[in-house]
Amino acid sequence: MIHTFKPSRYYNTIGWHEPALLIHDGDTVITSCVCAAGMDEHEKTITQRPNPMSGPFYIEGAQPGDTLAVTFDRITPNRPFGWTRNVLAQNVVDPDYVHRLPDRSAGVGRWQADVAAGTATLVSPETKLGTLSLPLNPMVGCFGVAPALGQAISTATSAEHGGNMDYNGFVAGVTVYFAVNAPGALFHLGDVHAVQGDGEISGTGIEISSEIQFTVRVLKDTHNIWPRGENVDYIFTCGNARPLDQALQHATTEMSRWLMADYGLDGVAVGLLMGQAVKYEIGNVFDPAYTVVCKMPKKILAQFTH
Amino acid sequence: MIHTFKPSRYYNTIGWHEPALLIHDGDTVITSCVCAAGMDEHEKTITQRPNPMSGPFYIEGAQPGDTLAVTFDRITPNRPFGWTRNVLAQNVVDPDYVHRLPDRSAGVGRWQADVAAGTATLVSPETKLGTLSLPLNPMVGCFGVAPALGQAISTATSAEHGGNMDYNGFVAGVTVYFAVNAPGALFHLGDVHAVQGDGEISGTGIEISSEIQFTVRVLKDTHNIWPRGENVDYIFTCGNARPLDQALQHATTEMSRWLMADYGLDGVAVGLLMGQAVKYEIGNVFDPAYTVVCKMPKKILAQFTH
Amino acid sequence: MIHTFKPSRYYNTIGWHEPALLIHDGDTVITSCVCAAGMDEHEKTITQRPNPMSGPFYIEGAQPGDTLAVTFDRITPNRPFGWTRNVLAQNVVDPDYVHRLPDRSAGVGRWQADVAAGTATLVSPETKLGTLSLPLNPMVGCFGVAPALGQAISTATSAEHGGNMDYNGFVAGVTVYFAVNAPGALFHLGDVHAVQGDGEISGTGIEISSEIQFTVRVLKDTHNIWPRGENVDYIFTCGNARPLDQALQHATTEMSRWLMADYGLDGVAVGLLMGQAVKYEIGNVFDPAYTVVCKMPKKILAQFTH
Amino acid sequence: MIHTFKPSRYYNTIGWHEPALLIHDGDTVITSCVCAAGMDEHEKTITQRPNPMSGPFYIEGAQPGDTLAVTFDRITPNRPFGWTRNVLAQNVVDPDYVHRLPDRSAGVGRWQADVAAGTATLVSPETKLGTLSLPLNPMVGCFGVAPALGQAISTATSAEHGGNMDYNGFVAGVTVYFAVNAPGALFHLGDVHAVQGDGEISGTGIEISSEIQFTVRVLKDTHNIWPRGENVDYIFTCGNARPLDQALQHATTEMSRWLMADYGLDGVAVGLLMGQAVKYEIGNVFDPAYTVVCKMPKKILAQFTH
Repeated sequence: MIHTFKPSRYYNTIGWHEPALLIHDGDTVITSCVCAAGMDEHEKTITQRPNPMSGPFYIEGAQPGDTLAVTFDRITPNRPFGWTRNVLAQNVVDPDYVHRLPDRSAGVGRWQADVAAGTATLVSPETKLGTLSLPLNPMVGCFGVAPALGQAISTATSAEHGGNMDYNGFVAGVTVYFAVNAPGALFHLGDVHAVQGDGEISGTGIEISSEIQFTVRVLKDTHNIWPRGENVDYIFTCGNARPLDQALQHATTEMSRWLMADYGLDGVAVGLLMGQAVKYEIGNVFDPAYTVVCKMPKKILAQFTH
Repeated sequence: MIHTFKPSRYYNTIGWHEPALLIHDGDTVITSCVCAAGMDEHEKTITQRPNPMSGPFYIEGAQPGDTLAVTFDRITPNRPFGWTRNVLAQNVVDPDYVHRLPDRSAGVGRWQADVAAGTATLVSPETKLGTLSLPLNPMVGCFGVAPALGQAISTATSAEHGGNMDYNGFVAGVTVYFAVNAPGALFHLGDVHAVQGDGEISGTGIEISSEIQFTVRVLKDTHNIWPRGENVDYIFTCGNARPLDQALQHATTEMSRWLMADYGLDGVAVGLLMGQAVKYEIGNVFDPAYTVVCKMPKKILAQFTH
Repeated sequence: MIHTFKPSRYYNTIGWHEPALLIHDGDTVITSCVCAAGMDEHEKTITQRPNPMSGPFYIEGAQPGDTLAVTFDRITPNRPFGWTRNVLAQNVVDPDYVHRLPDRSAGVGRWQADVAAGTATLVSPETKLGTLSLPLNPMVGCFGVAPALGQAISTATSAEHGGNMDYNGFVAGVTVYFAVNAPGALFHLGDVHAVQGDGEISGTGIEISSEIQFTVRVLKDTHNIWPRGENVDYIFTCGNARPLDQALQHATTEMSRWLMADYGLDGVAVGLLMGQAVKYEIGNVFDPAYTVVCKMPKKILAQFTH
Repeated sequence: MIHTFKPSRYYNTIGWHEPALLIHDGDTVITSCVCAAGMDEHEKTITQRPNPMSGPFYIEGAQPGDTLAVTFDRITPNRPFGWTRNVLAQNVVDPDYVHRLPDRSAGVGRWQADVAAGTATLVSPETKLGTLSLPLNPMVGCFGVAPALGQAISTATSAEHGGNMDYNGFVAGVTVYFAVNAPGALFHLGDVHAVQGDGEISGTGIEISSEIQFTVRVLKDTHNIWPRGENVDYIFTCGNARPLDQALQHATTEMSRWLMADYGLDGVAVGLLMGQAVKYEIGNVFDPAYTVVCKMPKKILAQFTH
């Protein structure tokens, strides 16, 4: 079943909030998300920062101990205006370089997103970059399920439940798997970026409001701790923590668990395989918790699975 | 001029050692490197761990304050036998997962490198991976110039002078730039991996002896602190430190300096560009210092440079 | 006014929960806290882990932007039985030492707390330590105010709002200052330790149920971000984060802000003073966020304040 | 035997340098050290930064595998003038607070050390601190033995061999134990601070030239990896690394090894004891490697050792 849902309120935490819509295993939802600053498709500020969430969506039958699979079918900016901060974050440069950075309050960059052309073009400020044009790559910055213990966690950060991971690989075609903590899972999403470099190192991507179509499934037989995902070429795991070292430990451990449980590898096979074939990517290094993604090529897995 | 050089001794530090060969700006050297365990092309152990270095090569005219550019023209394994450790390193998994790892002393993996076929194939131990075959991607794990202050630094680690960075992007066709600290720069190299996943997370790549051809140039007008490099598609910078956060800060700062000095960008242009277009890769996360690489696509730089 | 309050329910998060008791500026509360495992003064498990909180206490007149001052007047274990985990945590030792640790599930240590004698004595297991006796030092492990944005944060961790800091300096006689986020501040407390080494490195102190007497004040003119405190000899600040480096940055920055705002120092005076006179202590290094305390001796401050 | 030794040259690395003086097990040396900036007792700059080392002292009979014990008998400033940087280091405050720091190049603080009075008094610059007077606490900032593998490591940093640990507990009366790597151990020392807060957070203590008397012993039966030490009240271990978390892991692991090898404790006894009785202190958090000290009270150890 396909639901079309227009949010009437937004949340700045991911938590055990009143469900906005009840859906079922296999259902598809088309909804809209405001940008990180709470501006809608008309550039009107209708809610507050940080990263307002659409939802939560209550998935009938999802129980603690289950896994919720969310497939992003389509992520489409629904206005041309995107904005960025225009200075590197202080925490991504050497401490003795911080005073070389321009004043962080010096305004925002304006970008023009053209969905048909598949580009995002710099409009202002005026710099040597001119009208720099980048390939559009709409991604969901912040999404996840209600965390354990009845917690409500700010959408500025991330943890086992997902949250503000800002990984530019969370694009249409990707499926993400979350461990369910609350009855109904309570899925939240928002904070779309039209384009974003690795790390979200200026503190934003090109922030934009969007229409998102996603499809949910409830899985009864997986036991992940950290978010897992897959796209056409890779399976992957996400670790969220500081420092990056710990985020990488979480992602690596989750991949090891996955390969042992679902691909029949023992610890030595995991060491031999991951040691030679693993790829890492960096989600955000701006927010309180950083994100590291650990990827394994499906083509390599296919050599020993049938 | 092309020099063919066969090392008669090896070093386990990168330091102000007696030059092994004097060469000039523009010269090319063809030399051999033993594997990380000191085994040569006949699988004979001729020197000791860790990561024995060929060289140092004294480049006439290279002075402190200059930059040494080294281009890897060719990296060719010169024996079929490569070896790996076969268990994930304890420091790349969650602390409470360490006791799940197999015993680290449980032997090594044997791999067959086939240069003609472009593959590395698992020979032993026997696991569900069978005769897993991976694309050959010969890379130089450890190389660099004599560090500042007359230091001699173990080839187990890395710093501003280079060292054991274990980045699987250090392949043939890449040029790397080092700030020169000692007269003649004193370039060392070794520790080739036939294949290696990101992070060198089992503590090795497929360790192999090799023949390497490289070409040097002395540059008088660049002022990098951390190693820089370029390949066909990217310019990139390397940061070496723990935690990964600091390695990333070094690489990010070096890229900002580079873009401002050589591409005419101001701080706002740097923030706008890097924020949306930067890519990060992870060198090793096994050794005392970790490595992060910050990359910028040349295709994007071409939009505003002429 | 003095309130005696017996909790009828407990919370495993610090959040915007229904107030348990309304009190006023200047009031004193005598209440009881179960131990970290939810056991009361009769060793009966009456609620669930982790770290059940008594409260929250709603302080009339406390508004976002104010500071809540809480003075611990008395912290008295109300049963003789205290328990500890008996193995070092995996994250406080070198990764390659983890496999040397005993099995973490190997039971708990039992200790006898004697309030009159001022000691805690090891009862079991039997080890070479025999009946090791340590000076009693009752401290509050976890306490704080409702966090910003309507968050509810697990009592296993800590942040700007306080939480599970496990600093063994939070003893009777100490006053702690929190920035207020929610109307009424919503103060929670619990998780008393009869004794605890720095860092809570075995994952517990000697966990015990207690009676606590505290007094609150609402301050209108301070602007701390991180918890501040004072005892007879020191003023101090707390930073909660991972890695420890960041916790230390938060505590150091908060102390600098305090010295500049309330002691009239400029940045150079702060650098001269803190550089030579600051003391650091380590709260827990076991939980998701670590704690560092930055202390300044009042005796030194007295030299230039009148 | 007591040697009086006046250095004729200084080193900016700790390495396998030509011995300056040969001494024997049990000998005492009285020597002088310039300050961190290379200024002698007449405030004359006679050598270069960073942290010039007196020595190395070759101890006859000390072999790799042995332990060198160094007792600081006396540390006496030999000029009244001490200097400090006067601004907090950028890496010890929050990244978004760095731009609030005064310009780091803004000159130095001048202090008057009075050995007879036991004080260090601020002379300039003029601030609200006035003539702040602090208790003299002369400590050795940088010292150690030649590192493994023939390395020569900058005196700006620290590692297993010791180095620039800047722990304000390295005062007269302390004995420090180092694992010997080179024949003769090759002991270096220098960089005395008249006073220093924890962490060396402005990047210096009160830097001063000094006379130091120390006594050496060669031990054949201890097997430490990281520096160990003891004073009247404590035994302690030092870990040097970044982040602080790793320095703490090293120190904690070394203490566990010590308690198990020399005090007969098993892993459970270590967990029970260290969990309740350990104290941590922070050496420098300014240099490339940070230092954490793990302490155990002798009075508690005395309860179960005879």
